[in-house]
Amino acid sequence: MSLDPVLSRIDTDLTEATDRLKALLRIPSISTDPAYKADCDAAADWLVADLASIGVEASKRPTPGHPMVVGHVDGPGPHVLFYGHYDVQPVDPLELWDRDPFDPQVEDTAKGKVIRGRGSSDDKGQLMTFVEACRAWKAVNGALPCKITFLFEGEEESGSPSLVPFLKDNADELKADVALICDTGLFDSRVPAITTTLRGLLGEEVTITGPSKDLHSGMYGGPAMNPIRVLSRIIAGLHDDTGRVTVPGFYDGVPELSPEIAAQWEALGFDHAAFLGDVGLGTPAGEQGRSALEMIWSRPTCEANGIKGGYTGDGFKTVLPSKASAKISFRLVGQQDPHAIRESFRGWVEEQLPPDCTADFQGHGASPASTMSITHPAFEAAREALSDEWPDPAAYIGSGGSIPIAGYFQDILQMDAMLIGFGKDDDAIHSPNEKYDLESFHKGTRSWARILNAIAKV
Amino acid sequence: MSLDPVLSRIDTDLTEATDRLKALLRIPSISTDPAYKADCDAAADWLVADLASIGVEASKRPTPGHPMVVGHVDGPGPHVLFYGHYDVQPVDPLELWDRDPFDPQVEDTAKGKVIRGRGSSDDKGQLMTFVEACRAWKAVNGALPCKITFLFEGEEESGSPSLVPFLKDNADELKADVALICDTGLFDSRVPAITTTLRGLLGEEVTITGPSKDLHSGMYGGPAMNPIRVLSRIIAGLHDDTGRVTVPGFYDGVPELSPEIAAQWEALGFDHAAFLGDVGLGTPAGEQGRSALEMIWSRPTCEANGIKGGYTGDGFKTVLPSKASAKISFRLVGQQDPHAIRESFRGWVEEQLPPDCTADFQGHGASPASTMSITHPAFEAAREALSDEWPDPAAYIGSGGSIPIAGYFQDILQMDAMLIGFGKDDDAIHSPNEKYDLESFHKGTRSWARILNAIAKV
Repeated sequence: MSLDPVLSRIDTDLTEATDRLKALLRIPSISTDPAYKADCDAAADWLVADLASIGVEASKRPTPGHPMVVGHVDGPGPHVLFYGHYDVQPVDPLELWDRDPFDPQVEDTAKGKVIRGRGSSDDKGQLMTFVEACRAWKAVNGALPCKITFLFEGEEESGSPSLVPFLKDNADELKADVALICDTGLFDSRVPAITTTLRGLLGEEVTITGPSKDLHSGMYGGPAMNPIRVLSRIIAGLHDDTGRVTVPGFYDGVPELSPEIAAQWEALGFDHAAFLGDVGLGTPAGEQGRSALEMIWSRPTCEANGIKGGYTGDGFKTVLPSKASAKISFRLVGQQDPHAIRESFRGWVEEQLPPDCTADFQGHGASPASTMSITHPAFEAAREALSDEWPDPAAYIGSGGSIPIAGYFQDILQMDAMLIGFGKDDDAIHSPNEKYDLESFHKGTRSWARILNAIAKV
Repeated sequence: MSLDPVLSRIDTDLTEATDRLKALLRIPSISTDPAYKADCDAAADWLVADLASIGVEASKRPTPGHPMVVGHVDGPGPHVLFYGHYDVQPVDPLELWDRDPFDPQVEDTAKGKVIRGRGSSDDKGQLMTFVEACRAWKAVNGALPCKITFLFEGEEESGSPSLVPFLKDNADELKADVALICDTGLFDSRVPAITTTLRGLLGEEVTITGPSKDLHSGMYGGPAMNPIRVLSRIIAGLHDDTGRVTVPGFYDGVPELSPEIAAQWEALGFDHAAFLGDVGLGTPAGEQGRSALEMIWSRPTCEANGIKGGYTGDGFKTVLPSKASAKISFRLVGQQDPHAIRESFRGWVEEQLPPDCTADFQGHGASPASTMSITHPAFEAAREALSDEWPDPAAYIGSGGSIPIAGYFQDILQMDAMLIGFGKDDDAIHSPNEKYDLESFHKGTRSWARILNAIAKV
């Protein structure tokens, strides 16, 4: 089986491939909001049908939440498991979108053509690069160069509650030689990357209750404790003046960067000013004495992702609310234990409560950081294949994001994962006006064709 | 003209009076939300028609916001101006209501019958006590005992933006010997009250902007400043550890309570434990060393009335938001200058902004505190009339709330106002399940009949 006709086929099929992606993007599969349950199901159905169209034996597999899509196709080379997720983030604030987030279109921009729409980069556009590479292989050569198992999840954006049980229940079926995960980015537009370290993620929702009901601030303002004030004090106290997180024991298990890795990252010439400048910032806000790249790839952080309390509509209401709540997440590195940090955080909040106030906690995801071993020869084969496609050689990098599945593949299926993706920093994932560069989609598809070709030979 | 038949008429007409109030309560006249503009207009129309039905020459008077209702009826005694407001507070959180807030009903409770619904106590039920007293006078005696001007506002719950211009433009028409305002409460269920001091109110909405767009906390958590953290620090810093407000100059013009007033308030035997216990609290949270009654009636306060930022829907979203905002209000006393405090607050916030963050401010109402002179003989006449209706003698008291119109009547129309109302602390005004005791409505109506009778003779 030969590679060049596959690459040519990808080039000539780009318009049709884009149309297929747009069809998937039109399905509003927001997993965190129960109102979109049927849409998540529809996205899974769409993928089953699309995989079937290229000869993959695929099916929708029920879970207590949104379904998984699993597919199998035989081939001569090593067995790879490809993972992507078909669910997307919510779209609010909707008023900041320049178009309907679920009416995707190719737009011309100053930086080139982009596919605009929720999920275009995270992760529908990315997962379709792999599917399109397989489609081209199949069309040109009548078969695929490797044995491939496909696993598409529908709960990645809502903490993956069904994932671990599903992996455990289907370990024999899903285990492969190496996993391929397409949910990360390029280092920059010239340098492709294989991500080998991922931060963990702990999510906590805390609700402070003061008075037993909403009060009139004219009548009770003063004597009654205001839960917004209590919650604000807690959030304000999460970081000290040097930007370090104050939760007791938080830094247990956080390693310092090795000089080798530090030197390698330094050599990448990361443009810190442009990274911050792209989003209107000029001063790194995290731990003093750490570079932005170090903060993102190797340091743990804590952020309030949402806060609400009292009257938040138009106009003014002099209410003294009964409750205020916040969603708080921690990004974890090294050996930090998410469960220990959850307990420590809850105790730390409880200790700060004034009289008459209570705190209720709702736990969201809790996954440790993960580090890939790159000893499997597929890693180096993939890195060379990527280097053939892009202007500059591929790099092994870290990621500030959390892709817990890489750790689950290690723990449950005993295989390392190659995290390869084609997203860019300005894709606005999780934000209004999310886009995926048409170049990412096109060269990403070509990259996977090359990687499959290379892995088939290891 | 004699009083007793009027009181009897009020007793026999109670069911019909309650039905009329329910009709007014069914109109969702939420002034702060533009979606209810037509409903505010409908409530004004309803009042014009109801006043006309008792011989008052009434009309709806346009303003840049919601209309005023003005009515006139001649009579032999002194000229009084009666004020109430027909607009109501928003109803959220709607899920905490036990019934549709705009489907009012009389309910039996352990403490007696109540009229349940938004606006039942604040202020539609209260203003209708006066209208019903006039209706009974008119029905029994064919005329009213005083010359009366009615002024019903539709923007009291949204900062009264049109009120001052309207009073200035119509000062000749509206000026009377004394004003009657029905928007306050009983001291307790035995002791009626005339409120003579009112706190002022300053409303500020502050929006903190950090990054130029919402970010992924995996990618930017750490290096990017989070506006929720900045806003939390500001709110946390509004009070020091003794409960005092930290905005520079905030206590300028705050008088200490005179020993006489302090002794009079002490004699009222206010049940601090019950006041807090009613709303699930046990420890006064305001300035150390001050009693709850002192805090409410004579001390300035600051409260966050609402806060929002980031993702606040179901589930979890690891967004690092671009903006976070809060609605903050200050209750003012004595000679505190709301405009000076607004400027000081804004400067104080600006000084605390870290690099890359900006603050935008939207001013809401700004009214100073007011104190009534009680030298007009109508005050003592009314106090005696109230004492005749209720078990214990009426008291002159303070109020923690802000009713700026009392100050406007002093400044623009050169008349003092008698603030007399029949609300109770447990009416849940501005909260879910607002109610008005049927006894408040009934004895309130009887109280006004007695007060009109007494004022006619001064």
